[in-house]
Amino acid sequence: MATHPAARALNDDCAVVDLGGETLILTHDMMAEGTHFRTDADLADVAWKLVAVNLSDLAAKGAEPVGVLLGYSLGEDDDRFLAGLHEVLAAYDVPLLGGDTIRSQGSRTMGLTAIGRATHTPVPDRRGAQTGDGIYVTGMLGRAMLGYEGDPDHVDAYNRPTPLISEGRALAPLVSAMMDVSDGLLIDAFRMARASSQSFELDQAEIPVADPIRRDECMRWGDDYQLLLTIPDDLTPAVPATRIGTVRDRSEAVLLLNGCKIIDPAGLGYQH
Amino acid sequence: MATHPAARALNDDCAVVDLGGETLILTHDMMAEGTHFRTDADLADVAWKLVAVNLSDLAAKGAEPVGVLLGYSLGEDDDRFLAGLHEVLAAYDVPLLGGDTIRSQGSRTMGLTAIGRATHTPVPDRRGAQTGDGIYVTGMLGRAMLGYEGDPDHVDAYNRPTPLISEGRALAPLVSAMMDVSDGLLIDAFRMARASSQSFELDQAEIPVADPIRRDECMRWGDDYQLLLTIPDDLTPAVPATRIGTVRDRSEAVLLLNGCKIIDPAGLGYQH
Repeated sequence: MATHPAARALNDDCAVVDLGGETLILTHDMMAEGTHFRTDADLADVAWKLVAVNLSDLAAKGAEPVGVLLGYSLGEDDDRFLAGLHEVLAAYDVPLLGGDTIRSQGSRTMGLTAIGRATHTPVPDRRGAQTGDGIYVTGMLGRAMLGYEGDPDHVDAYNRPTPLISEGRALAPLVSAMMDVSDGLLIDAFRMARASSQSFELDQAEIPVADPIRRDECMRWGDDYQLLLTIPDDLTPAVPATRIGTVRDRSEAVLLLNGCKIIDPAGLGYQH
Repeated sequence: MATHPAARALNDDCAVVDLGGETLILTHDMMAEGTHFRTDADLADVAWKLVAVNLSDLAAKGAEPVGVLLGYSLGEDDDRFLAGLHEVLAAYDVPLLGGDTIRSQGSRTMGLTAIGRATHTPVPDRRGAQTGDGIYVTGMLGRAMLGYEGDPDHVDAYNRPTPLISEGRALAPLVSAMMDVSDGLLIDAFRMARASSQSFELDQAEIPVADPIRRDECMRWGDDYQLLLTIPDDLTPAVPATRIGTVRDRSEAVLLLNGCKIIDPAGLGYQH
């Protein structure tokens, strides 16, 4: 369906539209009760996360947020949702431009559209990784997993992720490819390699994880919203990031993990 | 919450954002199973209507559609939804730019964000009606009601409404206020009068209805997606439209219907 060039063949998290001397970045993500959040979740956290995951998509484009539109199913604890919405919009100085509230039956679904303006063109996407580029990731992986399990040091990483907006803007002029790690480092690295028609060789020991004993799970769990990027070998990232590998000429394996060839994304992470 | 000027205090159906020499028009509407469509509805019609009601919001701003983002809950008959989506996007030459598909539990919710560019500034809104202006409406009211009841001559008016995009563009340079009639003529006229701080005097006999015997219901039922507009007395609309009244100085009554003063919108139409 989405055959328009702006949709980037849906291989990307955002649409990119040139309009009147600016480049618009558009993204829409939904969260459903029972699928994306538990029925007993604090709706303030749900609101925070709904906004944050959309802003994270903008961050991976180096975009400056212009505003958001909310689609909201009314129900219990609407005041908690509003409180969390207010917090996250204030934290990132993003206006609520409008939207829709409805009454629905059964489990609730919230949707958010985030609109941004590119701060650098060409706008980074998943497809630009070049042979020889360094592969980097910001921050640490696995914190959302530990938070989901109840670790008090990491619970905010799961409930209230941080969209790396300023980091994305600083990186945009340097990167050959960039995306946010929403579904897990390995699956997202696989996707970037495939979209770029390259092979990604990763050094497992270099991948920064929150719990080294559970390295494998940390690399496969999603929801961390760190930035994964490739950058020419002679450049260094403009923000703290860890080099975890090197882009290689396309070979049979899309992903090379400590020399093991991975040709199928099954089992690498969360798949929609 | 939506305190940003672009949100127009949520008194309008769209957000209006100046960006890079263009004026963006943004709107988001949701439809939930059981509330906005019956569980046995043809999802092709649901897709059509979801897109059409958002494009109707753009039409009332005289905007040219740039594209849409879809939030979609997967379930049964997804192929029918896709078929209807394809039809409506092709009919109005609007690209699907992206979005999100999710799995949810229970009744399904779909959301659509439509993005447009203003073709005329200032962008028409509900607030500009001036004393002495003529009040006009396009088309005929009550067709959606008759279609909902099963009248074969009007069933498409309910299932597959027509967003008046070209009509909105033609009218935008002339109108002092404009909106689409989504919730019923009387309630929407009341809202426009209130937003403009004027009184609207309507001549009931002039209001074009699909079934004169049920005039009252036709004026109160929504879903017709005609355009309601005010225009200086010495101008005539650029498209076929019926004059149904005159804007008067603000008095106690927001709406005057054949001389009856209406000060409360209760009972005038569909209220969210």
